[in-house]
Amino acid sequence: MFGFFRKPPQQNNSAQAAKERLQILLAHDRSDRARSDLLPLLQRDILEVVRRHMRVDSDAVEIKLERGDDMSSLEINIEVPDAQPRPAG
Amino acid sequence: MFGFFRKPPQQNNSAQAAKERLQILLAHDRSDRARSDLLPLLQRDILEVVRRHMRVDSDAVEIKLERGDDMSSLEINIEVPDAQPRPAG
Repeated sequence: MFGFFRKPPQQNNSAQAAKERLQILLAHDRSDRARSDLLPLLQRDILEVVRRHMRVDSDAVEIKLERGDDMSSLEINIEVPDAQPRPAG
Repeated sequence: MFGFFRKPPQQNNSAQAAKERLQILLAHDRSDRARSDLLPLLQRDILEVVRRHMRVDSDAVEIKLERGDDMSSLEINIEVPDAQPRPAG
């Protein structure tokens, strides 16, 4: 549905060889519609924890939120231009 | 590949009607194999942030980690037996 695990078309371009991607998909299947705002909250928190482990430019984050009656979904795509060292700790 | 968004077969059972599910999929497409341990770290941190927003029993969490040469994937499935009120704050 989201093309999960699709390879980007520029994958074979040597200039792109060092590109690193992290894709995060969330699906929330709920019975209580009052809880429909869970995914935007998780979006913020998850981006925060990703930033603990890798350098992420705001420009490099693409987010899609879809809300349905019973199910909401959130897609977060993060591109890291080249492998950045993780901060210690 | 992971059957994302699949409905559980017991969905139509009225005893299961209040069941709430959260499915989180992560795919890490990397060039630097030294970074292969990112997903287990994110697994821990993401479960922590989910617990800020909903009550999660350890029994209700199913985790699958797959490691490939260039891509690793992590699937986290969380089932909440019935809609629990979110803790305030």
